[in-house]
Amino acid sequence: MKTILGRDLPAYIEGYGEVSPFQGTFRNYGIKTRKAVNVTSVTPANQKVLDDLEQAFDLLKIKDGMTISFHHHLRNGDHVLNMVLEGLAKRGLKDLTVAASSIFPIHEPLVEHFKNGVVTGLVSNYISGPVAEAVSKGKLKKPAIMQTHGGRARAIESGDLHIDVAFIASPTADTYGNINGVYGKSACGTLGYAISDAEYADKTVAITDNLVSFPACPIQISQVFVDYVVQVESIGDPRGIVSGTTKITKDPVALIIAKRTAEVIKASGLVKDGMSFQTGAGGTSLAVASELKDIMQREGVVGSFASGGITGYLVEMLEEGLFKTLFDVQCFDLKAIDSFRSNATHQAMSASMYGNPHTKGAVVNNLDIMILGATEIDTDFNVNVTTSSNGVIMGGSGGHSDTAAGAKLSIVVTNLMKSRLPIIKDRVTTITTPGESIDVVVTERGIAVNPRRVDLMEKLSHTNLPLVSIDELKEMAERITGIPKGVQTLEKIVAVVEYRDGSVIDVVKAV
Amino acid sequence: MKTILGRDLPAYIEGYGEVSPFQGTFRNYGIKTRKAVNVTSVTPANQKVLDDLEQAFDLLKIKDGMTISFHHHLRNGDHVLNMVLEGLAKRGLKDLTVAASSIFPIHEPLVEHFKNGVVTGLVSNYISGPVAEAVSKGKLKKPAIMQTHGGRARAIESGDLHIDVAFIASPTADTYGNINGVYGKSACGTLGYAISDAEYADKTVAITDNLVSFPACPIQISQVFVDYVVQVESIGDPRGIVSGTTKITKDPVALIIAKRTAEVIKASGLVKDGMSFQTGAGGTSLAVASELKDIMQREGVVGSFASGGITGYLVEMLEEGLFKTLFDVQCFDLKAIDSFRSNATHQAMSASMYGNPHTKGAVVNNLDIMILGATEIDTDFNVNVTTSSNGVIMGGSGGHSDTAAGAKLSIVVTNLMKSRLPIIKDRVTTITTPGESIDVVVTERGIAVNPRRVDLMEKLSHTNLPLVSIDELKEMAERITGIPKGVQTLEKIVAVVEYRDGSVIDVVKAV
Repeated sequence: MKTILGRDLPAYIEGYGEVSPFQGTFRNYGIKTRKAVNVTSVTPANQKVLDDLEQAFDLLKIKDGMTISFHHHLRNGDHVLNMVLEGLAKRGLKDLTVAASSIFPIHEPLVEHFKNGVVTGLVSNYISGPVAEAVSKGKLKKPAIMQTHGGRARAIESGDLHIDVAFIASPTADTYGNINGVYGKSACGTLGYAISDAEYADKTVAITDNLVSFPACPIQISQVFVDYVVQVESIGDPRGIVSGTTKITKDPVALIIAKRTAEVIKASGLVKDGMSFQTGAGGTSLAVASELKDIMQREGVVGSFASGGITGYLVEMLEEGLFKTLFDVQCFDLKAIDSFRSNATHQAMSASMYGNPHTKGAVVNNLDIMILGATEIDTDFNVNVTTSSNGVIMGGSGGHSDTAAGAKLSIVVTNLMKSRLPIIKDRVTTITTPGESIDVVVTERGIAVNPRRVDLMEKLSHTNLPLVSIDELKEMAERITGIPKGVQTLEKIVAVVEYRDGSVIDVVKAV
Repeated sequence: MKTILGRDLPAYIEGYGEVSPFQGTFRNYGIKTRKAVNVTSVTPANQKVLDDLEQAFDLLKIKDGMTISFHHHLRNGDHVLNMVLEGLAKRGLKDLTVAASSIFPIHEPLVEHFKNGVVTGLVSNYISGPVAEAVSKGKLKKPAIMQTHGGRARAIESGDLHIDVAFIASPTADTYGNINGVYGKSACGTLGYAISDAEYADKTVAITDNLVSFPACPIQISQVFVDYVVQVESIGDPRGIVSGTTKITKDPVALIIAKRTAEVIKASGLVKDGMSFQTGAGGTSLAVASELKDIMQREGVVGSFASGGITGYLVEMLEEGLFKTLFDVQCFDLKAIDSFRSNATHQAMSASMYGNPHTKGAVVNNLDIMILGATEIDTDFNVNVTTSSNGVIMGGSGGHSDTAAGAKLSIVVTNLMKSRLPIIKDRVTTITTPGESIDVVVTERGIAVNPRRVDLMEKLSHTNLPLVSIDELKEMAERITGIPKGVQTLEKIVAVVEYRDGSVIDVVKAV
């Protein structure tokens, strides 16, 4: 079988199942089903607070082969995933699938659980660090399933990803299971990636290091979805949860890229009242936001919203009146957390509302401008953010494919070369986001517009921007770096890359 | 068949179906199912704003026999139900079921739709005015189904009540279907009774007289649940939507009842830090709140929450620090709306979170003290708030059965006689709330404690409160009024009274 992008896929993958090959960004719409959910209803006599995790494991009746889920709002400070897995490993459980919205270096203990068969499946939107390397080396029994942020919510809500027990790391929880992320020593802000888990799992457990009397305020996840509450000493290390500040790059090349990107945005005609914008938290992305801010201020433009993982920089733009509101699925820094806690126009969104393609309309559908990164780009504009150029997993889509599909103008910003390797290739190692969703690639040496966007090409042709074809960009880099050798991979499939609609857009093979 | 309360019910009711007789307040718990929902997913190119209701009717493909739903936050000022039904009647539709959370006198045009067969079914939690009379006279083809606020959410979420199209009266909606009730000329505050409709209907339409650019803020109902947005001239008459102020009674008898009720509460031992409280918006209920407030202030008690339909009086108690938070399913007055708009500790709750028995725990489960009204009470403490003593429908449970079931102390406050008729009888005309849920009846002539509550009887015996048995209360009144004649009803069942778990607790017969 082949995807519409020409990737060969087996019809069936052991440990994954039947493969539905990717057929295009908007081919899989129409009437979809949110699955039925079993709810254990309780009388007023019921109490939810348990003594400890061990009591929770007893009551939850966790069995070999079950799927347990986690969110990643505590990022590289998360203690909950390791704590739960350690407890389950001690009980001798095997063959568990971990559905974690993202995996960070702190989750290294998972590698041991892979080796001894406690964990044989992994479903995630982003995998970095030792766990990513272990998956790439074939240490996990089944192929990992790599989803997008919106695709994960879709999978959970449709039933494609059935969660037996959701363990919700809860910066604050009350005695009846109401949860928020804005108070407590492990405050992380919004809890967008945990919402579908809490609502659609068979059982949901709040794990908190800040148990408060009923009722917690504000309520981000309601008591009606939570079966048990467990108090622990610490759910996370604040140093790993959020950075104190996110900073604009000082690298002169990155600043050139940012400036040109802003000029592309300006020329597109999208800078006007009601505009919307999303970018990541990286230094170059923030530099683009800074350039855009200057343009908006100069022209007196008021945007409708900025969205995504939210940084202090976007909070400043909100406070300065450049956007009417923020849609926040995840707070990236302390300033974002403070703002969400105190400013009603800083609104939370679930991952489903953010990017699930099978709702009545996600927030990404309203995005005008999206700034994206890339590890590799091919001459059809397909983007890889899943594997490094040596084929090892080092990330994943996160919201990349979701926002690229939704936004009117999706711009990849990247240096033409990184670590003496060219970024633009005939064929990317792994396709994460289809070229159909990418409109422009901005590098320090030139700007390539996707030939599908004749309208945009026309608009940019009236500027002094250095427009080139994507093939020319590739050749520019190769003249300096030479043509890189292809990646040597083994036959074993170690990860299945799902597009946001659940079709398979690529696979990752063992290295 | 008989209910556990001894009411005779047919096994099958034409136009309703098989009858599951009421078997006790907490007999029907355990694993329940939230139903699967069909979602029409859309691409970013999709637009939701339609030209008018006619275009919505075309796209919705409304057919004979369908169920359409409405919420009652615009109360006796609601224009939306009548507007939609008028349009559908003009199209010649027949045999529709109207699922409206409550029906007010303004909905009188429904009576004509009953007569001409446009509407043959009605599902509601509270029915008053001409529609109630028409139902009682047998003008509706099928028996009306009378639910509780929590029971309606349960029925919708379980699939017992399937909604084909939910029409959401929206004080503010944006162009992508995000809705709030706090802004616009028809502002009504929280939208608790509309949430399950929006989430579980096959199609959901926002009808608004305040269409704003994307995105609305705050979002109370999300775009992900809304298919279409229709702008109309007016969704409601502000004079009917909310009262300017809710006032404490000046009636001396009611004030005596309130004072005694507060003394009962005090003696119960529940007035302490963390206490919770709910009452209605009636003058006597507010007088109880006022007495309770005095006690709390005198003793320096800080409660956890007050809940329910929220009045300005409860807002004042929040602002004075007597409660940490409010749980608001519906704002009763302008002060409540203002508070909800601006105070984060004034929290919204859906009807499901409020009282649905088949969740992982509704807010009523945490209630300490509930103040209830009654039209009739029998000597087993069963309460009627559905029909008047002449057998005509004049209300319904609303949250009566939900809160009575959940609260630790459920107190019915009532005059011993009303309009020269005794309130306490051997047998109430209609059972709305089972006596099992009622702990105390407070009247101006005496206080009767449910014999099940030996503990409470013991506590009250140490006070000077005039304790009597419920039989004595009945006799006191009958000595003055004489024994009232029984109600003469016909054989035809005009309404089926569902308990919150979906079992049938009683039926109403034609008069």
